[in-house]
Amino acid sequence: MGKLYLQIPEWSWNLPEENQPTYVHHWVQPLQNSKSTPDLILYGAPISRSSISVSGASLYPTEFRRSWKSFATYNLDENVDLVQYTVADAGDVTMHTTDILLSHQRIQESTAYLVENYPNATTCMIGGDHSTTACAVRGIKEAYSNETIGILQLDTHLDVRDPKELGPANGTPIRQLIDGNIVKGEHVINIGLHGYFNAKPLIDYANKHKIQMVTLKQARNQGLIRTIQKSLNQLSSKVDRIYVTVDMDVLDISVAPGVPASTPGGMTTIELFECLLEIGRHPVVNHIDFVCLDPSKDSIVAETVKTGVYAWLQFVTGRILQT
Amino acid sequence: MGKLYLQIPEWSWNLPEENQPTYVHHWVQPLQNSKSTPDLILYGAPISRSSISVSGASLYPTEFRRSWKSFATYNLDENVDLVQYTVADAGDVTMHTTDILLSHQRIQESTAYLVENYPNATTCMIGGDHSTTACAVRGIKEAYSNETIGILQLDTHLDVRDPKELGPANGTPIRQLIDGNIVKGEHVINIGLHGYFNAKPLIDYANKHKIQMVTLKQARNQGLIRTIQKSLNQLSSKVDRIYVTVDMDVLDISVAPGVPASTPGGMTTIELFECLLEIGRHPVVNHIDFVCLDPSKDSIVAETVKTGVYAWLQFVTGRILQT
Amino acid sequence: MGKLYLQIPEWSWNLPEENQPTYVHHWVQPLQNSKSTPDLILYGAPISRSSISVSGASLYPTEFRRSWKSFATYNLDENVDLVQYTVADAGDVTMHTTDILLSHQRIQESTAYLVENYPNATTCMIGGDHSTTACAVRGIKEAYSNETIGILQLDTHLDVRDPKELGPANGTPIRQLIDGNIVKGEHVINIGLHGYFNAKPLIDYANKHKIQMVTLKQARNQGLIRTIQKSLNQLSSKVDRIYVTVDMDVLDISVAPGVPASTPGGMTTIELFECLLEIGRHPVVNHIDFVCLDPSKDSIVAETVKTGVYAWLQFVTGRILQT
Amino acid sequence: MGKLYLQIPEWSWNLPEENQPTYVHHWVQPLQNSKSTPDLILYGAPISRSSISVSGASLYPTEFRRSWKSFATYNLDENVDLVQYTVADAGDVTMHTTDILLSHQRIQESTAYLVENYPNATTCMIGGDHSTTACAVRGIKEAYSNETIGILQLDTHLDVRDPKELGPANGTPIRQLIDGNIVKGEHVINIGLHGYFNAKPLIDYANKHKIQMVTLKQARNQGLIRTIQKSLNQLSSKVDRIYVTVDMDVLDISVAPGVPASTPGGMTTIELFECLLEIGRHPVVNHIDFVCLDPSKDSIVAETVKTGVYAWLQFVTGRILQT
Amino acid sequence: MGKLYLQIPEWSWNLPEENQPTYVHHWVQPLQNSKSTPDLILYGAPISRSSISVSGASLYPTEFRRSWKSFATYNLDENVDLVQYTVADAGDVTMHTTDILLSHQRIQESTAYLVENYPNATTCMIGGDHSTTACAVRGIKEAYSNETIGILQLDTHLDVRDPKELGPANGTPIRQLIDGNIVKGEHVINIGLHGYFNAKPLIDYANKHKIQMVTLKQARNQGLIRTIQKSLNQLSSKVDRIYVTVDMDVLDISVAPGVPASTPGGMTTIELFECLLEIGRHPVVNHIDFVCLDPSKDSIVAETVKTGVYAWLQFVTGRILQT
Amino acid sequence: MGKLYLQIPEWSWNLPEENQPTYVHHWVQPLQNSKSTPDLILYGAPISRSSISVSGASLYPTEFRRSWKSFATYNLDENVDLVQYTVADAGDVTMHTTDILLSHQRIQESTAYLVENYPNATTCMIGGDHSTTACAVRGIKEAYSNETIGILQLDTHLDVRDPKELGPANGTPIRQLIDGNIVKGEHVINIGLHGYFNAKPLIDYANKHKIQMVTLKQARNQGLIRTIQKSLNQLSSKVDRIYVTVDMDVLDISVAPGVPASTPGGMTTIELFECLLEIGRHPVVNHIDFVCLDPSKDSIVAETVKTGVYAWLQFVTGRILQT
Repeated sequence: MGKLYLQIPEWSWNLPEENQPTYVHHWVQPLQNSKSTPDLILYGAPISRSSISVSGASLYPTEFRRSWKSFATYNLDENVDLVQYTVADAGDVTMHTTDILLSHQRIQESTAYLVENYPNATTCMIGGDHSTTACAVRGIKEAYSNETIGILQLDTHLDVRDPKELGPANGTPIRQLIDGNIVKGEHVINIGLHGYFNAKPLIDYANKHKIQMVTLKQARNQGLIRTIQKSLNQLSSKVDRIYVTVDMDVLDISVAPGVPASTPGGMTTIELFECLLEIGRHPVVNHIDFVCLDPSKDSIVAETVKTGVYAWLQFVTGRILQT
Repeated sequence: MGKLYLQIPEWSWNLPEENQPTYVHHWVQPLQNSKSTPDLILYGAPISRSSISVSGASLYPTEFRRSWKSFATYNLDENVDLVQYTVADAGDVTMHTTDILLSHQRIQESTAYLVENYPNATTCMIGGDHSTTACAVRGIKEAYSNETIGILQLDTHLDVRDPKELGPANGTPIRQLIDGNIVKGEHVINIGLHGYFNAKPLIDYANKHKIQMVTLKQARNQGLIRTIQKSLNQLSSKVDRIYVTVDMDVLDISVAPGVPASTPGGMTTIELFECLLEIGRHPVVNHIDFVCLDPSKDSIVAETVKTGVYAWLQFVTGRILQT
Repeated sequence: MGKLYLQIPEWSWNLPEENQPTYVHHWVQPLQNSKSTPDLILYGAPISRSSISVSGASLYPTEFRRSWKSFATYNLDENVDLVQYTVADAGDVTMHTTDILLSHQRIQESTAYLVENYPNATTCMIGGDHSTTACAVRGIKEAYSNETIGILQLDTHLDVRDPKELGPANGTPIRQLIDGNIVKGEHVINIGLHGYFNAKPLIDYANKHKIQMVTLKQARNQGLIRTIQKSLNQLSSKVDRIYVTVDMDVLDISVAPGVPASTPGGMTTIELFECLLEIGRHPVVNHIDFVCLDPSKDSIVAETVKTGVYAWLQFVTGRILQT
Repeated sequence: MGKLYLQIPEWSWNLPEENQPTYVHHWVQPLQNSKSTPDLILYGAPISRSSISVSGASLYPTEFRRSWKSFATYNLDENVDLVQYTVADAGDVTMHTTDILLSHQRIQESTAYLVENYPNATTCMIGGDHSTTACAVRGIKEAYSNETIGILQLDTHLDVRDPKELGPANGTPIRQLIDGNIVKGEHVINIGLHGYFNAKPLIDYANKHKIQMVTLKQARNQGLIRTIQKSLNQLSSKVDRIYVTVDMDVLDISVAPGVPASTPGGMTTIELFECLLEIGRHPVVNHIDFVCLDPSKDSIVAETVKTGVYAWLQFVTGRILQT
Repeated sequence: MGKLYLQIPEWSWNLPEENQPTYVHHWVQPLQNSKSTPDLILYGAPISRSSISVSGASLYPTEFRRSWKSFATYNLDENVDLVQYTVADAGDVTMHTTDILLSHQRIQESTAYLVENYPNATTCMIGGDHSTTACAVRGIKEAYSNETIGILQLDTHLDVRDPKELGPANGTPIRQLIDGNIVKGEHVINIGLHGYFNAKPLIDYANKHKIQMVTLKQARNQGLIRTIQKSLNQLSSKVDRIYVTVDMDVLDISVAPGVPASTPGGMTTIELFECLLEIGRHPVVNHIDFVCLDPSKDSIVAETVKTGVYAWLQFVTGRILQT
Repeated sequence: MGKLYLQIPEWSWNLPEENQPTYVHHWVQPLQNSKSTPDLILYGAPISRSSISVSGASLYPTEFRRSWKSFATYNLDENVDLVQYTVADAGDVTMHTTDILLSHQRIQESTAYLVENYPNATTCMIGGDHSTTACAVRGIKEAYSNETIGILQLDTHLDVRDPKELGPANGTPIRQLIDGNIVKGEHVINIGLHGYFNAKPLIDYANKHKIQMVTLKQARNQGLIRTIQKSLNQLSSKVDRIYVTVDMDVLDISVAPGVPASTPGGMTTIELFECLLEIGRHPVVNHIDFVCLDPSKDSIVAETVKTGVYAWLQFVTGRILQT
């Protein structure tokens, strides 16, 4: 049924521009101010104490919003003015300091609440570590228990480590969902795997559960955009709604200082931006998240946070182009 | 009555020097190799996901040991050769990835096991965040339920925030112990408070429970060493055993880059070293811990970790001088 | 007559605590909300393009305020609760992007406005580079043209370089005021000079104009607090109002990464804090500023900004103790 | 009619190699030593206090020269020995500490002097922030008032913010020139725009004045080199001389730590190098500048400064290949 | 005849996994534990005091091994499990603190010993600076004096500076080998040269001795993989064994913070990885080294060390694919 | 007899001020320009490949000189104008790239040349690592073979490791001199030892050879200045000339980021400055060096290099006060 555990973020919408907004921080409005259903609802899941290694990804929602003022609302490449699209910020899910399960439960219930009460809005969760994805997907399933959910995952890792061993940690979300019968393995497509970053037993699990693995090399060979299109088309023929999860560690380590798990040989930012534009364009994508970006490790100029905001705006631009 | 959850640390005692050890990494030996009761038992409590703000203090036990090879076993100032004193390393308490309460329970039980089985050894716990102190003291109480425990705390903060609100987080250990009837407030002495870092309601709690607060300024005015002596003498006249907890945030921010909660106006390293020498000298001190040092924030040359090892060696030197 | 060019700072007073505030960001209130005259008025002068070398001191007012949430309103050493004292934030003087003279003029006029309209309030300006001091003192002189102004300067430098050569740059403020007949050289006392950081011709200028120079070594030898007391007493016997300017480069380079002009051999933070407490205590001090702190150069944990806030709170504590 | 305000840079040409120079610092010679007209004249415009945000781009000319000793005078790819081409360094335009307009005026007059007295030399200005471009182009117009000037701009931004609001700041140079009737909007081609970094009103201004905007994506799609060729050909058919301005923020943020305004999604260094080689090849390019590189933000190994020198050498190689 | 000067590295093979290893640190085994000839022997040459500029490349062997635990033994792209291939670690050659010639001699003799005693194993040396390559090749020549050795060099520099001037420093190895009649210039192929990083006299030397220089631009134009194939085929038709030396400064400066000599315009990591896979595939490659990576300059997340391990694993994967 | 191997440093004395110099870079003049014997001769010994661990101390002489422009020639505390004292810079001893013994020999011979040809000048060597001290003292002995040399050493370490094991590395200079019969152990006084940084066997060696060890704690207890005076007086009663060697690792790690071997618990900068002033005052001190400062590890603002220059100027001020 869902319940809302959302704090109003420390953010100043109280200085609206006189006319049409031209920067992102004036364009996005708080959900509680919304008169009608927004096109997209944003909410933060600021938890990273569920991360296997030390992570400050809990700080990302705040830094994500703080970076908005560096971005204009106009995309010149696509000749699109974002202000025609309404984005509402629901704030951050209230986390408990030490009770990880309770925090996870609240992410699930808040997601359920939002998708139930705003059925026509796209939802976008800003993590937090990757454990939050399992919570969000369970929340959607709670609200739409009759629907089948598919997952498109951009990630260097499979994230199918065993929750029996680790609890609901950030290496486990896809396995939580499969073992918990929320999502079928065959409805999961992972794009971005490469190198030597997934141990053999995890690949065995993925194969056993028919997770589709498209390595970055394979995706580049067949065209990254075409791979995205094909994957979304395939999923949309089999499921009712598609959840996209973007683990920022899919990015190459040289462009993502703020993602401790990023590796050499990963995606370029241009590739990520093109993928998100394409994903935004696809009508069956209902939900998206961006996770595992730790601003406390970012470069002084907040290079990775800026990349994260850019990627999100590409998704929004895609949404507009779709219509 | 206590159970041991200890992993053998990644450390190489397998390369002993041919003769008498001259560096710390050859002097300290694993507990399982000990033939007789060691003078001091060291163990790690590598948890910091219980920290209110993001912390990598869980990494300290490993970095603490890694830094040993930079330290000789001879103290020229006191003309003391440490090798006459036996130190055994019991390893780290095994932590769970996401179950904080379980991890805390294991710290408590492992401490109980050690103090019960090695009643004549001084125990020294390397944290982890300050939540581990509550676990360790509860473990000691579990083993010696008839004894009264006093606490000498070197800290910039009171650490009496409310566990009802935060759970057993790193701002709460002293309050956990007082509210849980493990330790009386009047048996707690805090040295090192200063500035504007403890909110009024916390000071009200401390006053209500008769925690003795000696500000750093007061301690300096009356002599820091004399303050330590007086405090330990006073405690030892009232309690059966004294637990010393050193929150490394007592250090000034300019000498402790690896302690995120350190502040301007704190202790100098020389002051800390003199305090630890004096504390080591006192016969009624049975237990000590060093907490809240986050090596991932430390300077490149590991300045704070080196300070932590130095402080610990001063305590050991004090132990030897005492006899 | 003064004119107010103040922008409302990006700051959220809209989340007051339910009861008595316990942290600084809930205690300080915007000037426009004040019903009666506040005890102290704070305002920012965010300019540093007037600095000889590249400086981001213009960023200090914002970071100064952002750091408030790390400070409680209670000083344990002096047993003082700050909330009894009212502090109002007037915001930042509106700067022009390229017209330095205009920006300086606005600092002058805004200062004149504030001291005229709030004659009983202490004013506290947060710079900005040291050029702002000349503007502020001129503004006070504009409002109180019949009064004599004395200056107590904590600084490693004399700041008497020639404005004829440099314009009103940050190395010139004291000379601007002396040459401009706003302040007499004999009414300026500089404490904190040391080392090899003032060229001979500048010392000749200071001697010629009877600026009193107390080196840090001299001050330490006779007692730093006693030096402050003596200086303020001497000034107060000769002038009508005292303006205190704290160039943060008086601090030692090892504790002030955020002050590019700081040097080895400077003041410790403890010394600065004691000075400010003493200065706050003195009834004839009406105006104070803190300048030349560049947050963009500060350490990751904002060590120098925290030191700046601490120093300011010591001044406030002194104000309270004075009464 | 132009006046020279140039200081001799702190640079040592006094250690010439015995034979043919093999490194850049021995190859470039001071202008005052030149017996005949050099092929290219280099001069610095070390100002960045005209920058909207804090910038140390004023430090670039010095660091640019300091980095020369890491570069040989031979380009293996093109099999070109640079020493056949004479480059003279005229030093830096003398800046005033606080009078921005005066400093700008001197850049203009010095440029006028150089282009008038060395009509056959290519001029290359090293900024400084982007405000210097407006000065340089005005200087050229002063010298050649009958000629039409076209601008090829490599930049992530349009730089057409309103000087009425900001004064002659670094966001305004192109608008200064258009509004000042120095250059026509239709004679400006901007290559490198992308993402969400130009607010709608600025794009409206550009469209209104017929500035040609080629986004980076468009340029890549049609071939970056071809885009450069086409743009230069088109301009050269309409104007008398072409001024190329390279705002280093056209580079991707991951390769340009020393350019605070760089963004994700920008040019790679290889792309920039290829562009500059092509630009150098074009006979109608008479003037070039490189601006907005702030060495104080650069990586420890001076990655961005090295990229800047490399790009400049590519331009020189192009000049040689052209002949 | 060769002599072995190898220290056992500080590394823990004493914690083998129970079953099949899934991470690199459990897969690689010490040479002294090997029962049969391993497929590949790894050894470190930890010297960099022979470097012209200050270098900590001597630290690379240790950091290389420390990074193993971040890498799984499975390559998803090629569907290859590395554990089928045996890798033995012979440890590090024992270096003398100040006698560079002695240290070099020991590298030579240890290499001779290994190639003589394990004629069927591929050898892989981890430097150290590039001076070590000359030692290793001389050691191989010592063991196989009748065989002709060819060198494939991935490098931004020719490394043919004159040892008569510098001694056996890191800029001289290829010239040492040519002038010492160990290798013929025509049997050396250098891929990766670009920009302005090789002075004319060095290029003249290379041309005179018929070193084949393929610039990175040329290699990209004809296909990097095809260039590698062609080069190895050509070499294998002329020589008996091929030594591959990978100077990590072939990488672009933006992806190689840990390689002080890297430059803008170098190889991407993807390119390097593809090259190494191809090189590994070639049956005539018997020896390889990776040099000039200085971990003390690396980013906090050890980006360059991780890239180095990845590149080496690509070579191993190639070895497996070859069979 | 000595021989001079000195390169002219890259430094610009060619821009003398019109009148009396007011900054250090205009006051110090090259030795070859000196008409008469200077009061003090400065020379650099830029070698650190003789260091046990990786060190860039070879870069110190250049950075030491580069920092001069931040220092005025006037000491306000002592009211001393340095320009009355003549300082000549002889440049740097020419180092060989790989032949450490040859480089050491040249330091020795150059020192011999200088002390022989300028018998009335104080010599000041800027290292380089601590191995250079042994060379310099041997050079002095070569020139004055009949004289007895005493050493005052400010150092955290004894530097008596065995050259038979390490060669003439930076841990061995004092032992080289004692074992080589250049200096007697009883003529060596070490001030600054503390903590756990000298292994027992080294202390045994020092005791056996009657090196006088004054720990920092002992020196502070009896007064640091008094300890210096007493030590110099004692030495001067027994030897003909005193060589002072300042290993910058005597400084506390928190104030010396540029000295990798510095430790917690070391000297403050104020203490070092007072010591150097006192040492400068003593007439029997003929030679001094400053070693082991690695500018490549220093903070961005060159804190440690500035401390090094300050300390040297204190020595010069002492020289002037002495007369």
